[in-house]
Amino acid sequence: MTVTVIEYLLRRLHDVGVNDIFGVPGDYAFPLHDAIVAHPDINWIGCCNELNAGYAADGYARIQGVGAVTTTYGVGELSAISAVAGSYAENLPVFHLVGMPTLATQANRSLVHHTLGNGQFDLFRSMADTVVGASAIITPANAVAETERLIAEALYNRRPVYIALPSDVVNQPIVAQSDPLPLPVSDATALAAATEAVVAAVEAASTACVLPGILLDRLGLREVAQQFVEAADLPFATMFADKSVLEEEHPNYIGMYDGQLMDPAVREFVETCDVVVAFGAMATDFNTGAFTSNLDRDKIVKIDLHSTRMGSTVYQGVEMADLLRALAGRSWSTRQRGGPRPEQLGPVSGSGADPITAEALYPRWADFLRADDIIIAETGTSSMGLAFARLPQGARFHNQTLWGAIGWATPAALGAAVAAPNRRLVLFTGEGSHQLTAQEIGQFHRLGLKPIVFVLNNNGYLIERMLCTDPDIAYNDVAPWNYTELPHALGCDDWFTPRVSTCAELDAALKTAAEGARAAYIEVMTGTYEVPPLVQKLHENVKTLYNMS
Amino acid sequence: MTVTVIEYLLRRLHDVGVNDIFGVPGDYAFPLHDAIVAHPDINWIGCCNELNAGYAADGYARIQGVGAVTTTYGVGELSAISAVAGSYAENLPVFHLVGMPTLATQANRSLVHHTLGNGQFDLFRSMADTVVGASAIITPANAVAETERLIAEALYNRRPVYIALPSDVVNQPIVAQSDPLPLPVSDATALAAATEAVVAAVEAASTACVLPGILLDRLGLREVAQQFVEAADLPFATMFADKSVLEEEHPNYIGMYDGQLMDPAVREFVETCDVVVAFGAMATDFNTGAFTSNLDRDKIVKIDLHSTRMGSTVYQGVEMADLLRALAGRSWSTRQRGGPRPEQLGPVSGSGADPITAEALYPRWADFLRADDIIIAETGTSSMGLAFARLPQGARFHNQTLWGAIGWATPAALGAAVAAPNRRLVLFTGEGSHQLTAQEIGQFHRLGLKPIVFVLNNNGYLIERMLCTDPDIAYNDVAPWNYTELPHALGCDDWFTPRVSTCAELDAALKTAAEGARAAYIEVMTGTYEVPPLVQKLHENVKTLYNMS
Repeated sequence: MTVTVIEYLLRRLHDVGVNDIFGVPGDYAFPLHDAIVAHPDINWIGCCNELNAGYAADGYARIQGVGAVTTTYGVGELSAISAVAGSYAENLPVFHLVGMPTLATQANRSLVHHTLGNGQFDLFRSMADTVVGASAIITPANAVAETERLIAEALYNRRPVYIALPSDVVNQPIVAQSDPLPLPVSDATALAAATEAVVAAVEAASTACVLPGILLDRLGLREVAQQFVEAADLPFATMFADKSVLEEEHPNYIGMYDGQLMDPAVREFVETCDVVVAFGAMATDFNTGAFTSNLDRDKIVKIDLHSTRMGSTVYQGVEMADLLRALAGRSWSTRQRGGPRPEQLGPVSGSGADPITAEALYPRWADFLRADDIIIAETGTSSMGLAFARLPQGARFHNQTLWGAIGWATPAALGAAVAAPNRRLVLFTGEGSHQLTAQEIGQFHRLGLKPIVFVLNNNGYLIERMLCTDPDIAYNDVAPWNYTELPHALGCDDWFTPRVSTCAELDAALKTAAEGARAAYIEVMTGTYEVPPLVQKLHENVKTLYNMS
Repeated sequence: MTVTVIEYLLRRLHDVGVNDIFGVPGDYAFPLHDAIVAHPDINWIGCCNELNAGYAADGYARIQGVGAVTTTYGVGELSAISAVAGSYAENLPVFHLVGMPTLATQANRSLVHHTLGNGQFDLFRSMADTVVGASAIITPANAVAETERLIAEALYNRRPVYIALPSDVVNQPIVAQSDPLPLPVSDATALAAATEAVVAAVEAASTACVLPGILLDRLGLREVAQQFVEAADLPFATMFADKSVLEEEHPNYIGMYDGQLMDPAVREFVETCDVVVAFGAMATDFNTGAFTSNLDRDKIVKIDLHSTRMGSTVYQGVEMADLLRALAGRSWSTRQRGGPRPEQLGPVSGSGADPITAEALYPRWADFLRADDIIIAETGTSSMGLAFARLPQGARFHNQTLWGAIGWATPAALGAAVAAPNRRLVLFTGEGSHQLTAQEIGQFHRLGLKPIVFVLNNNGYLIERMLCTDPDIAYNDVAPWNYTELPHALGCDDWFTPRVSTCAELDAALKTAAEGARAAYIEVMTGTYEVPPLVQKLHENVKTLYNMS
């Protein structure tokens, strides 16, 4: 039986875990989108705009392992490109499917809409190439080979890929065959050498610890990583981007490591260990407390996706997954685990008509969280407060720490909710960030999803007030919205939408939201400068954050 | 007195007409945005997100001649890049000012937020290069020369340009001087030859007409072009993208030329003229009635921005402005002007409780328009109906015909309103397109602007229903919003926001809106398939539109 280009592509995407594709339709993508809608095992999830669709696919991939977004040519794909770049930065394999003008239009160099009017049709693919792992423009001849190459690239490096389909190619029969490409495996000699070297270093250390990176989650290696820390009985700390990659209720968890900004006991322990085993953990600005951490490179066992470095020795061709499994399967000497007990956010303070201070808010939010929650925390003040809450079993904290695009969280929460409709989804966003992408709220209702949304209204971009020269400068103000009216305006006609300004109001709203009968959208009013500790510390450390002299 | 990099740049942007800069703040752009806010003659106009800010700058440039948008690095600039590409396609000189990490951060290859985590800092500039006329990363040494080069490029080719400013460069003193670059002038010999050739061709023709392109508007040449058609007494027609570039009440106007799809009298006249003088008019899909026009290339005098072509002869180095002025200043033989009288949309139909059909709606909208209105028409059904309304004196119709990004119109209307706060601004958008960028509505109120907004609610993407295979397919549906609640939710607390479903309701709403006391946001309910004639014709001509066999 004849298989078409799109049948092959969608079948293979479904094989690797794509059950839902987020997108905005457009005419050059009609045949592509027709096929998605018609596919028995893949759902079309329409979004309000392409950037939001890209963020939704990113959020979906954080839960599902892979994601997909589809747009039309030019206008659509470029509107989504920042979201795709974010998926690159954050190691998320998102498939970006783009519908292109027909091959005839391209060959004629026709002056058609969604182009620059210059008859060139390969420009946007080359723009995408900067922010994806691989790209292809599909023809019947290359469809199978390119589909397999792009899937392999997406999975091997955990990066987004770009797939453009000319309208008239979509339903053509494929004219070549290929098997799925097996992913590269470790070089056996290098793997053995690296394993022995890591074991020797850890066994020789009087104190050692682990920094598990979020990449472990991307690779589906959380359980193996937990087996390793248990087998070797090593304490572990996590950095901001990596929060909750391993269970924070695990007895070996010692807390968040954020340079000199937070929790000095964790910093002292980690930085005085003889060996620190880092799995893909990156020394970025927000992982290092604005570059205030001080980890001796020679003490770090740096286990990356495809190689491991110890001092000046680099073991090439060593897959993180293979090395981790080898380490988890070893028998280890009994050792003194060491390390501090993880901190908590502190007791809930304030009550009754008290205003909602930072000290009142963040411990309440921490208490609100439950086992297995999916927490989507927007870049900014709210995530910087929540990151130091200790999470219950199975709860996962998602933040776009490296790419850090404000606006990401609201559509990413939609994507995450689509991926796991039976888990509780809790979105925390500042109101300034929310304004970028707020219209996607309407899609939750359309899809019958019941998120719990907290909109922290602190009268503008608070994180920016704390990092710029004049906190009251006009650009930190945003248009004053009536947030609690927004869900209904966007069609969410049965949502719980209180505005809370006092501790008692907040407590009541949290109680109702916790009951879970309805989706909740809670506007939390605080003073303009109510900041959690990390934000205050960043304010005091802007010079190291920005490499300013 | 010392002049800093940013002082020089902002002074020069103000010199060429930038009085307002649209943007979203971000930390790498703080010094840049501080300087904008502090500038005595330039206004900071905060937008909800960067794509919207880019569209607003595009709309502003359509009125003001130039525009500017500013974003932070990576996340911000890439979110705006589709809007910048649109300004490229549509010949709008928009300055995109990007705040970058410090030179020290770049030199250290620091792993900082808003990057891909690879220590590379020139990637996004190279992505921008595809969709701008020129770009630069500013240093104190190059600041003056690059500022002048980019301004000259933006003005000479009417294209956007990209200017990245590292945070620590912004307030450095400039260390070199330059004068503004004079724009190239025509080659005198070529100009004289082209002028004589055009005059000879037109004088020899028994029938001739003009197709004035929107580029005339971009170049500020509307008045000269009108002088030319009057001096030579030539009839003129306009194509879709070029609508209203010359006055539609002018006696020489013969109507819209849209291939075989619309108005056969115009097509017959234009296509049987011996000579057609086209000023920058482009033979794009939507200018040619889905490629159904049939203009003999040998009859076209093709006057482009920097050259003129007649048959196989190309006059290089001939500036459109110079040639047009030469032609307008000639004395011409008296001739029989010829050509049809322009069509109107037809009489208003329907009344009372009648539903709002296409026949009821578009003539009413046409009647609603007044002299000097700024009309922003979204890509889609509504613009395709309105384009055939004959506009009153001074009214200008703006549509993003070539780039055709849905969502453009709402923020572009904001930009246009900022550029001309004392002119009436009328926005026509479909509700599907509106959903992409609807949050920008709140900015009108914040800025004290009083637009008239028509949201055509026809239950989804109607233009897509008419162009795809199965009109009822799921991807053409959008989330059902309560549109009339939206302005208030976005802070517009005194707007007139009716929903109208009958002719009487529409008439009443139009009457109130016309009084102009308040901003208006009118949801117009029509049947799912209420299409104006052009949309029906496109539906019947999808094969030529898409080069399908």
